[in-house]
Amino acid sequence: MEEQQKGQSLSSLGEFALIEHLTKDFPPLHAETKVGVGDDAAVLQPPEGEQMVVTTDILLEGIHFNLTYTSLVHLGYKSVVVNLSDVYAMNARPTAITVTIGVSQRFRVEQLEDLYKGIRIACREFGVDLVGGDTSASLTGLTISVTAIGFAKPEALCYRSGAKVNELICVTGNLGAAYCGLRILELETRVFAKQPTVQPKLEGYEFVIGRLLRPRPRQDAYQQFAAAGIKPSAMMDISDGLSSELLHICKDSHVGCRIYPERLPIDQETYRVAEELHLDPLFVAMNGGEDYELLFTVPAEYNQKMDDMGVSVIGYTTAYEQGAVLVTSEGKEYTIDAHGWQAFKEESFTENPKEA
Amino acid sequence: MEEQQKGQSLSSLGEFALIEHLTKDFPPLHAETKVGVGDDAAVLQPPEGEQMVVTTDILLEGIHFNLTYTSLVHLGYKSVVVNLSDVYAMNARPTAITVTIGVSQRFRVEQLEDLYKGIRIACREFGVDLVGGDTSASLTGLTISVTAIGFAKPEALCYRSGAKVNELICVTGNLGAAYCGLRILELETRVFAKQPTVQPKLEGYEFVIGRLLRPRPRQDAYQQFAAAGIKPSAMMDISDGLSSELLHICKDSHVGCRIYPERLPIDQETYRVAEELHLDPLFVAMNGGEDYELLFTVPAEYNQKMDDMGVSVIGYTTAYEQGAVLVTSEGKEYTIDAHGWQAFKEESFTENPKEA
Repeated sequence: MEEQQKGQSLSSLGEFALIEHLTKDFPPLHAETKVGVGDDAAVLQPPEGEQMVVTTDILLEGIHFNLTYTSLVHLGYKSVVVNLSDVYAMNARPTAITVTIGVSQRFRVEQLEDLYKGIRIACREFGVDLVGGDTSASLTGLTISVTAIGFAKPEALCYRSGAKVNELICVTGNLGAAYCGLRILELETRVFAKQPTVQPKLEGYEFVIGRLLRPRPRQDAYQQFAAAGIKPSAMMDISDGLSSELLHICKDSHVGCRIYPERLPIDQETYRVAEELHLDPLFVAMNGGEDYELLFTVPAEYNQKMDDMGVSVIGYTTAYEQGAVLVTSEGKEYTIDAHGWQAFKEESFTENPKEA
Repeated sequence: MEEQQKGQSLSSLGEFALIEHLTKDFPPLHAETKVGVGDDAAVLQPPEGEQMVVTTDILLEGIHFNLTYTSLVHLGYKSVVVNLSDVYAMNARPTAITVTIGVSQRFRVEQLEDLYKGIRIACREFGVDLVGGDTSASLTGLTISVTAIGFAKPEALCYRSGAKVNELICVTGNLGAAYCGLRILELETRVFAKQPTVQPKLEGYEFVIGRLLRPRPRQDAYQQFAAAGIKPSAMMDISDGLSSELLHICKDSHVGCRIYPERLPIDQETYRVAEELHLDPLFVAMNGGEDYELLFTVPAEYNQKMDDMGVSVIGYTTAYEQGAVLVTSEGKEYTIDAHGWQAFKEESFTENPKEA
């Protein structure tokens, strides 16, 4: 607590001066941004012939982040990119965000400067404008709500509902790392609480922790689709875990799916850390959230192109009546159920997992 | 606490079922709304030739509302209309909102149904679509963050920066009521805490309390401007208090202002309640927030039209160098300063106030 009292108090600045101070380093990047921070509302010029997408996510202290092990720079960055991830998942390009924060008096101006530094890094990296927001006092902790706006030609947009039968099911990057990173940080926090003189041991966990604290939205996949002239038939980002997202696409597209566990992309460090934590790496890849990879479907003829793009084809879509099924290399079948993973866990896939 | 444990727990539904349950009664009203709740992002079709405005506000329990005296239906309604007010203040028409809530386990499904009932009432009354959002657990209390989107022809938009010298300064409706309502409810809450068997005395305070709990954005003024072919040169809504908003317009438009206190519109009940509370009614009208009236400037030739519209002309703009000044009927002048009202209070205007 004492450490947090250093620096300038929020009340010494007042709301308007604080907003002005925090947002002064955000010159508009887009011609579409007509008016940014500082009026009743921001004004954007929608590009002719394009549709607009809008998405919003809230991050609450103690639920989505723990400031014991999350720096405010990382938190600001992450609060932006989780929203950009939703825009890319529509196959649209994000152009603007609004940021609303609720903040208690225990925070100092310098800490909010760090938060906005992370927001600014994300804005510059992905070319989006901060166009507005709201800053408010809160009784407890920190709340960050970000809204992201993007644009796309109507025919380019990808919905969850567009998958057809016998299409490839694909995943960018790799899965399960962020969840392993979270477990490692939670473990070290508990050790630290008991023995404050012991330094946290984070060597060998850089990748999984980095995936949790600094997720990257798949702007590159969005760009590769455009360059290759590919439009996924259905797409969404993986924030809640692959199995949950698969069920969303199956439900909304009225298809089933067959997923091959040995094809799931799992990084070597994720694999090793999961085993250290006595977790089934496959369970982690299927259910760990917050990786912000893209899950999408494409027609079967794109098999080679998917290889070229470096994405993993993890299975294919089937008729709705065939359900959502995991098929092991021995031919065993398990129903995918986001709420019923206990049954799956008992069967244990750890005997014969392969890295994709 | 016991009462709040009645009803269905949030965990019994889960996040996705909860969102689906709460948003099922929101059929899209606008052709522009292509996809609402249920994908990674909502999709809107911007009307051709129009610009988009976007605004966001956060309401936090214990800061912006007290559930001791605020019903969740009213709270849902208010969380929407405070954002619509910002859109009307741009002289634009709102078409869509997103709603993000953080909610602790002490809330029951039935309470969130009430919250969304209020949101639905506001959506229908002002013709906007609920197109997306996010629902999250929170450790403490309730957080509501709403983003509103609207459209207008570029030439119709009103900014804070457009006022010129020698224009009329106008205010819709009346001022100070919401602040008086807040003070009455706080007073009754303290009495109730000490003597729980005493019923709160709210008779005679219906207007001021109603203004706090059920504010109405000035959609009617937006419509009247359009019908009369009037475009305010500058406009904003009065959420933080008239003096604060006047200073915003003066700063952004680089003008000064002269305000006549006897012209400030104050309702009879506001006037009476302010005096009961030993508050200067003028102080309340100048500094009480949350009335959600519109403050705007128009060229002097619109004087008669302002009368016809029922808005109050409270002063006029001057050269920037003349500052922001309050001029009493005796010709005394006081500098308007949102941060320096103690000096103003000491001079006391209660001797000779008139209702506009």
